[in-house]
Amino acid sequence: MTDKIEATILANIQRLSQALEEEKKMITSTDGAFPSVEGLKEVIRFANNIFFPDLFDKRRNGCEIRSFYIGVAVEKLYSTLSKEIARALMFGTEIREEEAFRRGKELAAAFIDTMPEIKRLLYTDVQAMYQNDPAVDNCGEVILCYPVVRAMVHYRVAHSLFKLNIPVLPRILTELAHSATGIDIHPGAEIGEFFAIDHGTGVVIGETCIIGHHVTLYQGVTLGAKNFTLDSNGHPINVPRHPILEDYVTVYSNASVLGRITVGRGSIIGGNVWLTNSVPAESRILQRKPMATTFIDGLGI
Amino acid sequence: MTDKIEATILANIQRLSQALEEEKKMITSTDGAFPSVEGLKEVIRFANNIFFPDLFDKRRNGCEIRSFYIGVAVEKLYSTLSKEIARALMFGTEIREEEAFRRGKELAAAFIDTMPEIKRLLYTDVQAMYQNDPAVDNCGEVILCYPVVRAMVHYRVAHSLFKLNIPVLPRILTELAHSATGIDIHPGAEIGEFFAIDHGTGVVIGETCIIGHHVTLYQGVTLGAKNFTLDSNGHPINVPRHPILEDYVTVYSNASVLGRITVGRGSIIGGNVWLTNSVPAESRILQRKPMATTFIDGLGI
Amino acid sequence: MTDKIEATILANIQRLSQALEEEKKMITSTDGAFPSVEGLKEVIRFANNIFFPDLFDKRRNGCEIRSFYIGVAVEKLYSTLSKEIARALMFGTEIREEEAFRRGKELAAAFIDTMPEIKRLLYTDVQAMYQNDPAVDNCGEVILCYPVVRAMVHYRVAHSLFKLNIPVLPRILTELAHSATGIDIHPGAEIGEFFAIDHGTGVVIGETCIIGHHVTLYQGVTLGAKNFTLDSNGHPINVPRHPILEDYVTVYSNASVLGRITVGRGSIIGGNVWLTNSVPAESRILQRKPMATTFIDGLGI
Amino acid sequence: MTDKIEATILANIQRLSQALEEEKKMITSTDGAFPSVEGLKEVIRFANNIFFPDLFDKRRNGCEIRSFYIGVAVEKLYSTLSKEIARALMFGTEIREEEAFRRGKELAAAFIDTMPEIKRLLYTDVQAMYQNDPAVDNCGEVILCYPVVRAMVHYRVAHSLFKLNIPVLPRILTELAHSATGIDIHPGAEIGEFFAIDHGTGVVIGETCIIGHHVTLYQGVTLGAKNFTLDSNGHPINVPRHPILEDYVTVYSNASVLGRITVGRGSIIGGNVWLTNSVPAESRILQRKPMATTFIDGLGI
Amino acid sequence: MTDKIEATILANIQRLSQALEEEKKMITSTDGAFPSVEGLKEVIRFANNIFFPDLFDKRRNGCEIRSFYIGVAVEKLYSTLSKEIARALMFGTEIREEEAFRRGKELAAAFIDTMPEIKRLLYTDVQAMYQNDPAVDNCGEVILCYPVVRAMVHYRVAHSLFKLNIPVLPRILTELAHSATGIDIHPGAEIGEFFAIDHGTGVVIGETCIIGHHVTLYQGVTLGAKNFTLDSNGHPINVPRHPILEDYVTVYSNASVLGRITVGRGSIIGGNVWLTNSVPAESRILQRKPMATTFIDGLGI
Amino acid sequence: MTDKIEATILANIQRLSQALEEEKKMITSTDGAFPSVEGLKEVIRFANNIFFPDLFDKRRNGCEIRSFYIGVAVEKLYSTLSKEIARALMFGTEIREEEAFRRGKELAAAFIDTMPEIKRLLYTDVQAMYQNDPAVDNCGEVILCYPVVRAMVHYRVAHSLFKLNIPVLPRILTELAHSATGIDIHPGAEIGEFFAIDHGTGVVIGETCIIGHHVTLYQGVTLGAKNFTLDSNGHPINVPRHPILEDYVTVYSNASVLGRITVGRGSIIGGNVWLTNSVPAESRILQRKPMATTFIDGLGI
Repeated sequence: MTDKIEATILANIQRLSQALEEEKKMITSTDGAFPSVEGLKEVIRFANNIFFPDLFDKRRNGCEIRSFYIGVAVEKLYSTLSKEIARALMFGTEIREEEAFRRGKELAAAFIDTMPEIKRLLYTDVQAMYQNDPAVDNCGEVILCYPVVRAMVHYRVAHSLFKLNIPVLPRILTELAHSATGIDIHPGAEIGEFFAIDHGTGVVIGETCIIGHHVTLYQGVTLGAKNFTLDSNGHPINVPRHPILEDYVTVYSNASVLGRITVGRGSIIGGNVWLTNSVPAESRILQRKPMATTFIDGLGI
Repeated sequence: MTDKIEATILANIQRLSQALEEEKKMITSTDGAFPSVEGLKEVIRFANNIFFPDLFDKRRNGCEIRSFYIGVAVEKLYSTLSKEIARALMFGTEIREEEAFRRGKELAAAFIDTMPEIKRLLYTDVQAMYQNDPAVDNCGEVILCYPVVRAMVHYRVAHSLFKLNIPVLPRILTELAHSATGIDIHPGAEIGEFFAIDHGTGVVIGETCIIGHHVTLYQGVTLGAKNFTLDSNGHPINVPRHPILEDYVTVYSNASVLGRITVGRGSIIGGNVWLTNSVPAESRILQRKPMATTFIDGLGI
Repeated sequence: MTDKIEATILANIQRLSQALEEEKKMITSTDGAFPSVEGLKEVIRFANNIFFPDLFDKRRNGCEIRSFYIGVAVEKLYSTLSKEIARALMFGTEIREEEAFRRGKELAAAFIDTMPEIKRLLYTDVQAMYQNDPAVDNCGEVILCYPVVRAMVHYRVAHSLFKLNIPVLPRILTELAHSATGIDIHPGAEIGEFFAIDHGTGVVIGETCIIGHHVTLYQGVTLGAKNFTLDSNGHPINVPRHPILEDYVTVYSNASVLGRITVGRGSIIGGNVWLTNSVPAESRILQRKPMATTFIDGLGI
Repeated sequence: MTDKIEATILANIQRLSQALEEEKKMITSTDGAFPSVEGLKEVIRFANNIFFPDLFDKRRNGCEIRSFYIGVAVEKLYSTLSKEIARALMFGTEIREEEAFRRGKELAAAFIDTMPEIKRLLYTDVQAMYQNDPAVDNCGEVILCYPVVRAMVHYRVAHSLFKLNIPVLPRILTELAHSATGIDIHPGAEIGEFFAIDHGTGVVIGETCIIGHHVTLYQGVTLGAKNFTLDSNGHPINVPRHPILEDYVTVYSNASVLGRITVGRGSIIGGNVWLTNSVPAESRILQRKPMATTFIDGLGI
Repeated sequence: MTDKIEATILANIQRLSQALEEEKKMITSTDGAFPSVEGLKEVIRFANNIFFPDLFDKRRNGCEIRSFYIGVAVEKLYSTLSKEIARALMFGTEIREEEAFRRGKELAAAFIDTMPEIKRLLYTDVQAMYQNDPAVDNCGEVILCYPVVRAMVHYRVAHSLFKLNIPVLPRILTELAHSATGIDIHPGAEIGEFFAIDHGTGVVIGETCIIGHHVTLYQGVTLGAKNFTLDSNGHPINVPRHPILEDYVTVYSNASVLGRITVGRGSIIGGNVWLTNSVPAESRILQRKPMATTFIDGLGI
Repeated sequence: MTDKIEATILANIQRLSQALEEEKKMITSTDGAFPSVEGLKEVIRFANNIFFPDLFDKRRNGCEIRSFYIGVAVEKLYSTLSKEIARALMFGTEIREEEAFRRGKELAAAFIDTMPEIKRLLYTDVQAMYQNDPAVDNCGEVILCYPVVRAMVHYRVAHSLFKLNIPVLPRILTELAHSATGIDIHPGAEIGEFFAIDHGTGVVIGETCIIGHHVTLYQGVTLGAKNFTLDSNGHPINVPRHPILEDYVTVYSNASVLGRITVGRGSIIGGNVWLTNSVPAESRILQRKPMATTFIDGLGI
């Protein structure tokens, strides 16, 4: 390291060590506690061991021993999750450390109380994917391979934490799935049984969506907001602003369904369609035909 | 842990330990053997060392020693892959363990017999990307950086295993690439030489696609099915249902090409187009123009 | 291993050990040095510790000790980055090893000199996301959860290296973010302050884009080229070919904006629109309405 | 690498690849299976979790959940140990793979059947150390810190495997403890309850030793053979050749007790003594006094 | 797993899950907190970085940056050690969790206050070894290679914690060094400047030893107790019972020096000697000569 | 962290950041390069794969592939060792970096040239242990379990490096074995074929020892110096000062053989003996008998 380089580095360390005004304002937390992404990955790992014990934990051999494995997985999930909840409470809200840890334990137990129902729902999702796909031979293959299963495990766990009013963690969980699958489901959305997404990359499901049973989406579908309601400071308000999809609706690839509209039971929305008004039950909505041309101007590279 | 929390946890362990009816039915395997995602990641690591020895294994120094490295990589790939194939056979089919391991070894060797051809094809793909991109300086950069190369290594390996009728593994392999790149190529698709995908996020290539030589796709392109043929139980049948793209076809971003149609040699399909009928050679297909407006209703957030 | 299998394996080792003609030609480097993806991941890890010290490095406890942590992180970044730059120089260009390491050190110091400005810009991006999103409670949540922050850290670091004419590394950095977020920003693009992308999967921003301040994009937006200018050998030339977005422009989901056009200050481009010509300030551009139909032909699966 | 260096390396690879005559003869195993040191370390880790659940597995919280943890640890120990036994059988004896794995499972279960007794004995050893040591405050400290506890866990597990006639593994286990503690107990030795070794470095206890209850040894003590009985080929024969120590015997530091002699109940053998004949109960044996001198010849550096 | 094996395993899980009476009594701790060996290994790693920054942390480049590295290492040591002290307090004594953590922080800071003196002493030990050994070329080699340096770092750190009345941790620290080096120094012993041990395996230094400056020991030396003083229950009492070695004493290999005796300044104790009474300054003590014989009875194998 | 604690920590960081005078003087190295213990552990790992390919590398399956594995192991050993030698040269001597790396490569190749001979010698050592031990069934067990094999691999590699005048590394290698086995062999010692050490803890073999063929040692044996020759500054001189053991000598446990004496061919030295003068061929040397006593004064605890 030459003297000139050392001088440059030392000068910048000084500049970088001074907190920006924005930096000082915006992050506050009781005693420097932050939720840990690693911790949440562990929570999902334990949850997978519990929901799909034959697939994700190979050491099970017999019935009774299986329950020991599940017992250990539940206890470890409890222990990791209660810590992460405590940190999330201290990160997002004013709370004493002791109180945060006490609440973390209660809320982790409350979450565990919802796990049997989450498991039941996940198996309906697996069945939905299995029935939709002509190529699949085996439900185990769906669980092992399909991105939608990963997305739904994360979403259904995150949604349960969201309903318990736990801050920050639900969003981190769904963003982990978003990164791995390209499927972005807000933890606040309500999704019924037998939900299927094929391929999935680019799917976005907004915070106030309500989705019925037996709904199927394809890649690139947006269930989004049409526009924002602003408060007097021009800051957007969190009101119902995403679509309602009734039972047995199907939305094909890259379609956008926008605003607090209702897509009636059994409707089919075609690919690349851009829909901003409600449609009655059993509707069929299609994009207009493209045109053929001899000169092509603008390729969309 | 308070008594109330402990009681909640114990009650739920009991409930979660009881296998659901669906769970019992749907996953069956000879003696609890499941393919391992970690094992398949190793297979790809060894394959990369073999296909691109200068880039992925830096310890090579001279010509003869290079062959030792490749020898070891091939032997390790054989050993890991034969085990994974055996597990996949036991997972997807009724087979005795011993027979599965014997078949696993034969099929792994059969796969290795296709590796020189896979390597040849991959270098045509690298060249295609290199020739398409004005920014790239260096083929090594393509191999190191471009998601399409990762997607094609996974796909071409998976396709070879698919043609050997090995269950489950091909799909796990392409889903690993899908997760990392957003490019979802079904291992059953047939793809010719000099294949290029730019950017790639959201590309979907269906199981029965047939793609010629020198074809280029851009991000968000779907080569999908128009609709399903159902059997008498309403379950979709696995028949040819995805497009045929002849040599020198280009499809621009977010276009959807659907159904068992043929896109003639040298055709160009414009961005965001939604095409469901065959077009002759040298076609040029464009989306209709958007409209300008002063009032905007529905933003697609 | 049977004799037949061993013979197959040995024969293929021999075939795979012979370098292809293309292989020999295309990868050249001074003494087998290649940039390391692991090294660049470390650089980003150190950069995150420096930009967001409270979030990514929990061991800080007081003001002065914080500067020690930042000092160490800067020095480690310097040491790792200077090696990676040296390798990139030897990979992409003819240069002696000693010279490469000397230049690597200078360029790493020059990069560190830009880090305070990168940090300032990143905090404007965080604020932009915070102001756009009705759901978010807390800027720290934006930094922890939102894919756009990860994408922008990678892009702003890569862009700074790009402007220092460092080869290969900028592209590897943005592809790492592309893989994790589905957001593909070319390191050559120019992007102003307070930049926001919501959801983000499928966004593509081309090499010669120029983007003003306070611009917002949604998922699936392409800012691409309309067509290529070819040189006399038919190879595309690297000229300005991507759009200019002036300040306060918003582009909604899956829209494609193509070619060296200008989108005027304060314009809004609607979802799924495909735009290939310049529009004046405050424009509102919308897709044509879809049609309802009773027969649906082509679902875009 | 210069040409000369490459030639040297290649020539030596050739020489090193040719198996020596001794090499070919001496190692034989069914299909290349060898016991794995890593596997045995896992076995000990699981055993510690089972014997000292409060100390080595911190996640236990309540009584019932504790049994889940122990259940999982026992099942994992079974699964790892049965594989290692199968490999040891194939390594040391002529046996078919299938038979080896079947026997491995039976023997692992037979070992587990001895674990409650091993646990009981280990707690007597802990108590013995606790009562001997004026400095120790707390039995947990003995378990956490004292090398003798590690040595005795390894020995008592190894001795149980030894009595089940399992080859190779017992010796690997005691050598692992030997390396970590300097205490070398042959797995064939018989050792009673309440056994203590203080400091321990250099202690050697031979294969045919018989040690009663409440025996205490200090560092450097050898309980060895006086001489060997040779067979007609001059190879030593495995006959009783190490001492018998009756109950309540104490042997102080660096003493050597040699041959098939009996040290009577309650005897004390002083430090640095070299004893080769039996002594009656309650004996007191001491080294002769050293001499003072003005000239020192030979320092024993 | 056959039914019979499963039954065996389940029965033993039940038996192993029942805590022994001894087990219940002997380990008590506030809320299951135990000191962590991994944590203490980290403390030593940080301490080595602080004491020998040039050798154990290679990333230092210049003077000011060196102080950043030391600052970070000290802060990490503080943070890890304060947690381990808190756990040790809860393990060994009745104390509330909050109080334990508060005390842990105070005591960790008090320890850091002794580190400059520990560093000074360690460099005198390194010099002593360097001056004793005809083979060594370089003090850095002593620090990198010699087991005594490892033993003394552990001992001097442990002794400082011992004097702060911190339970359990000092002993774990010296046992870690004992395992790695065969040198067993009780943390309670008092050892002066310029202390050297050559080879070291088997050295034992008891709790109440007092050792002056410039003392040198060789392998296998015991500085032990002659006998115990028992209390009315027959439990040994912790009184001064180990030797005092004045300045410039040397003790050669395998000698035992026992009881609360004084070895006068400048004395030399020969190899294999067994000494139980005080000797004046400048003494020379030797073992009696061995005898030659034609018949050898007892080999000490 | 309270203000008082923070002040303490900051003050000590300042004190600890100032290099001691001794510290500044004693460690010098070209550009901060130090040999790496991790690197040397890798060298030994590769060496074990080369010497015992069937035992330490389980992936070998057939004859030709075995040579690939050995080829790769030799090349990796070359690459790691040449770097470590370069660092050792820069650590111990004044040398330019470039020159150090050039010499490192030459010396690593020169070392590889000695590996076939080292391998031959190691197999004689294994046979010697096998013939000495009545308990062992299988030479593979000797290689897997016996500490002497580990010690001899380290020693024979270190001795070869020592004869090539490579500084520092030989000593680090033998200290690694010393720590793991308690056997301390100086890399300068000369040791013949068929060398055996049983148990081994506490064995010390000095730098200028010369040991013939078929020599056997037991635990605790010291082959040491009787006294030092000092130079005019009182610093000890490195002259021949350790014993010569002729062929077929055996030395039993805890014996000390000291000074430049010769133990004649075929001699047996009994346990605990302390020998400082030469003995003729076929000598038998024994310790004097201990005495029995009723009062025991000094137990050597």
